[in-house]
Amino acid sequence: MKLIPFITAASAIAIVSLVHAQQVRNEPVKIIEPYVSDTPEKVELGKQLFFDPRLSMSGIISCNTCHNLSYGGTDNLKTSIGHKWQAGPVNSPTVLNSSLQIAQFWDGRASNLEEQAAGPIAADVEMALPHTLAVSVIQSIPGYVDQVQKIYGDDQVTLDHITDAIAEFERTLVTPNAPFDQWLMGDDDAISATALAGYDLFKNAGCIACHYGEALGGKSFMKMGLVAPYESDSPAQGRFDVTGQEMDRFMFKVPTLRNVTLTQPYFHDGAAETLEEATQVMGQLQLGRDFTEQELTQLVAFMETLTGDRLQMMLPILPENGPETPAPSPFE
Amino acid sequence: MKLIPFITAASAIAIVSLVHAQQVRNEPVKIIEPYVSDTPEKVELGKQLFFDPRLSMSGIISCNTCHNLSYGGTDNLKTSIGHKWQAGPVNSPTVLNSSLQIAQFWDGRASNLEEQAAGPIAADVEMALPHTLAVSVIQSIPGYVDQVQKIYGDDQVTLDHITDAIAEFERTLVTPNAPFDQWLMGDDDAISATALAGYDLFKNAGCIACHYGEALGGKSFMKMGLVAPYESDSPAQGRFDVTGQEMDRFMFKVPTLRNVTLTQPYFHDGAAETLEEATQVMGQLQLGRDFTEQELTQLVAFMETLTGDRLQMMLPILPENGPETPAPSPFE
Repeated sequence: MKLIPFITAASAIAIVSLVHAQQVRNEPVKIIEPYVSDTPEKVELGKQLFFDPRLSMSGIISCNTCHNLSYGGTDNLKTSIGHKWQAGPVNSPTVLNSSLQIAQFWDGRASNLEEQAAGPIAADVEMALPHTLAVSVIQSIPGYVDQVQKIYGDDQVTLDHITDAIAEFERTLVTPNAPFDQWLMGDDDAISATALAGYDLFKNAGCIACHYGEALGGKSFMKMGLVAPYESDSPAQGRFDVTGQEMDRFMFKVPTLRNVTLTQPYFHDGAAETLEEATQVMGQLQLGRDFTEQELTQLVAFMETLTGDRLQMMLPILPENGPETPAPSPFE
Repeated sequence: MKLIPFITAASAIAIVSLVHAQQVRNEPVKIIEPYVSDTPEKVELGKQLFFDPRLSMSGIISCNTCHNLSYGGTDNLKTSIGHKWQAGPVNSPTVLNSSLQIAQFWDGRASNLEEQAAGPIAADVEMALPHTLAVSVIQSIPGYVDQVQKIYGDDQVTLDHITDAIAEFERTLVTPNAPFDQWLMGDDDAISATALAGYDLFKNAGCIACHYGEALGGKSFMKMGLVAPYESDSPAQGRFDVTGQEMDRFMFKVPTLRNVTLTQPYFHDGAAETLEEATQVMGQLQLGRDFTEQELTQLVAFMETLTGDRLQMMLPILPENGPETPAPSPFE
């Protein structure tokens, strides 16, 4: 694009935005934009905390244990294993692109990432470290106290500092540039004809009614077992567990389909081991239809185009214990 | 240094080496040199495997779980926690600078890093994945098969490929440039007068008899409880567990003191929580002397100068499951 010499900076931006807008296809699925934090030092603190097993009673479980950033931001277990090898009640959702969702957890009981981050630290079946202890552990580590002082201007670490920093780090965990994003940006060759047929079917069959937007999900709650009941031995009852209202029974947050090739097994109970199985069950229980083998192949080919750029980051270096840092208690 | 113009390249190198040799103090403790691998692709493969929890039966324990590279290359537990939350028999030794040691494990039962790497993968109380299964898991992951093919020219993954790559990665886990190395290189200001007094005492008291060389340890086996018996509820009997010979009872590999500020708790049973406590016990049981408070302060100040450059590396990106990759079995 040639710019006329007397063009102003503002109008140049307007023109570039226009061109940008014209390039992006108008679809119910939206591209993911990279997240640029204006507080990189908070991102760094949050990253250290995310990888720090000292936030668990045992000293060996960090956020990254169940939300493995070397893979798909989850642990690929049916349901997570936590403190003393206890099995958690539900499948660990991926942390990738979690910032693009209306609420956190399968039952949406946390309204944002900050609230979410506090949960697993203290949960008895997860990291099992009561919040008061978690705060005193972080307060005992001089390298953390320094960072909190610089970022927040406070000498005393609080739970809010911890969860605020973790949340800011998590906002960076978006995965742009999937083949499907490239197709949305106008590159016809970015996805195969089979995947494109899968996307058409995805829209026509009604999958898109829930799995839309940047994250292809995460924007609404939906009943698991809409046209036929879902049978599970999981005790989880979705939103009902939060509100106690009958209308919320089995209402779960629609999971994101981004990076779905990396986040098996599927569903809140982790019962579906493969994408084919999960897709077939969704067709039957939510849409009342049996997908043919060819349709399943197309739908899976489409979903395989949703795996974005893998995360590129330095392994964090954790600050050293201070003299008062307590030893971990793996058997308490 | 000015070089005379007609000097040859070879003699220039000789002169520089001479200057280098003159700079380094002649001490029983030696500086650590960085390790430069001539097979960086093998280092990368080994790194991925080191961080891959799919090498465990549960799918959530990787080498990095007990040898945390974000901290001191260990788990800072008394003894490690493994599969199904079983407590291991001994304290996890740091993987940092393990390549500088004569043998691996506290009892030296592995003669090199390759042999060592195979152990925890299959050990029932650690990762609990039998070797045949470990090989078939890696063989099922196309990204690993590709790397093995390129590096070793083989289509079929073997345990030797896995342990060879992990060992080459581990050879990069050296930590040069500690304040004490800087002092050894001639920088008088790199350590405090207290630390220097501690080093003199370290040599005069006899600590150096075992804790010498680049790693300040790792070069010999020594009886734990030389002048007075060590009391422990640990079942570990050191070399005796390997050889069955009475003379080897309680003979343990002398642990490295490198990065000792990051590797608490101490001893094969993890019984000493602080460096002060460990030093006092060593004085009493190995040297038959009670260090004064001042002496302990000096010795600890010296050991604090042994923490080298923390590891700087990218978080590895693990290759995706293939269609035949088995699901993990955390409760088997």
